[in-house]
Amino acid sequence: MAFSPLVDELVESLRCLPGVGQKTAQRMAFHLLERGRSGGTRLADALSNAMTGVRRCESCQNFSDTELCAICENPSRSIGTLCVIESPSDLLAIEQAGDYKGGYFVLMGHLSPIDGVGPEEIGIERLVQRVGGEQVSEIILATNPTVEGEATAYYIADRLADRDILITRLAHGIPVGGELGYVDGFTLTHAFRGRKPLSD
Amino acid sequence: MAFSPLVDELVESLRCLPGVGQKTAQRMAFHLLERGRSGGTRLADALSNAMTGVRRCESCQNFSDTELCAICENPSRSIGTLCVIESPSDLLAIEQAGDYKGGYFVLMGHLSPIDGVGPEEIGIERLVQRVGGEQVSEIILATNPTVEGEATAYYIADRLADRDILITRLAHGIPVGGELGYVDGFTLTHAFRGRKPLSD
Repeated sequence: MAFSPLVDELVESLRCLPGVGQKTAQRMAFHLLERGRSGGTRLADALSNAMTGVRRCESCQNFSDTELCAICENPSRSIGTLCVIESPSDLLAIEQAGDYKGGYFVLMGHLSPIDGVGPEEIGIERLVQRVGGEQVSEIILATNPTVEGEATAYYIADRLADRDILITRLAHGIPVGGELGYVDGFTLTHAFRGRKPLSD
Repeated sequence: MAFSPLVDELVESLRCLPGVGQKTAQRMAFHLLERGRSGGTRLADALSNAMTGVRRCESCQNFSDTELCAICENPSRSIGTLCVIESPSDLLAIEQAGDYKGGYFVLMGHLSPIDGVGPEEIGIERLVQRVGGEQVSEIILATNPTVEGEATAYYIADRLADRDILITRLAHGIPVGGELGYVDGFTLTHAFRGRKPLSD
């Protein structure tokens, strides 16, 4: 049913958000119109600014307002270690853990030939060039432990095999705080294979 | 963790949407930046237009772009019947059912003295005025069957008691397609009390 052109267009536009269908879009639109006009105006400005102003960092491919992102520009981050991840949310998770102080390279996806995503699309050539140009001594392949993530990691390792660089992959094992009885078989196998002496 | 000022502001602004927390806002922002820039720009425009352009219909209080909404302006709708509802989504539900052809009055809420919402705030005075000015012969009180909705309905009925108007309330009973075994006791009681001869 047509409501009013402006409200209809708002509901329709809200559906571009992931996980938002017709009913949720309606609820969002009515909420903003009834109780959140200032928030809606702020969101409109933020969206418009971000859609035009946010680009990719020249060095790590992450979202950035400037040519280089804050992490790539930070002189206190070690440039000897490079962590390769699939998405900006992975970067956020690692930064929130707070322990890692090296650089990043954000692929913005993983290899997926069936969807037409090859090495060029996720910037692996750029990664190889960057590794050649900088004093990188270690590459941490932190792609997701999925079929595509593993394939991407192996492809990158293969491309960099002839360089004198340590290539590592994040450890698989039992999550801290997890219960053994609920951990799947593959993870348990990895945990057994990767066991360490207690003195470590 | 600070990402980039534009992305941070976008994530923060998205949280004004109902049901959207930090993680969902991040997912939405990254989705728009990665794969939906055109959708994001369209949403920004739609939001900005709706936040400034949408107002209340002078006659029924529903959201409208113009002084009178499409339903109030439609000469084929009977103005003799007025359906009083709590929110625009109730109106959508009734319009989608497609059977009702009268007018509406949208309260945009219900009486809730504890939150400072009195008759003035939800426009009951305007409703009483409108009923006085127009040839209204029936008022259908279609507020929700909750404590506040019932209280609002009784308050309106009380205010209009001295007029020569039929005041009705939507029937309570078993939902069509529902199973008796899963219907709650109050609804069943209503269904028994409201039973009708089969010939109706």
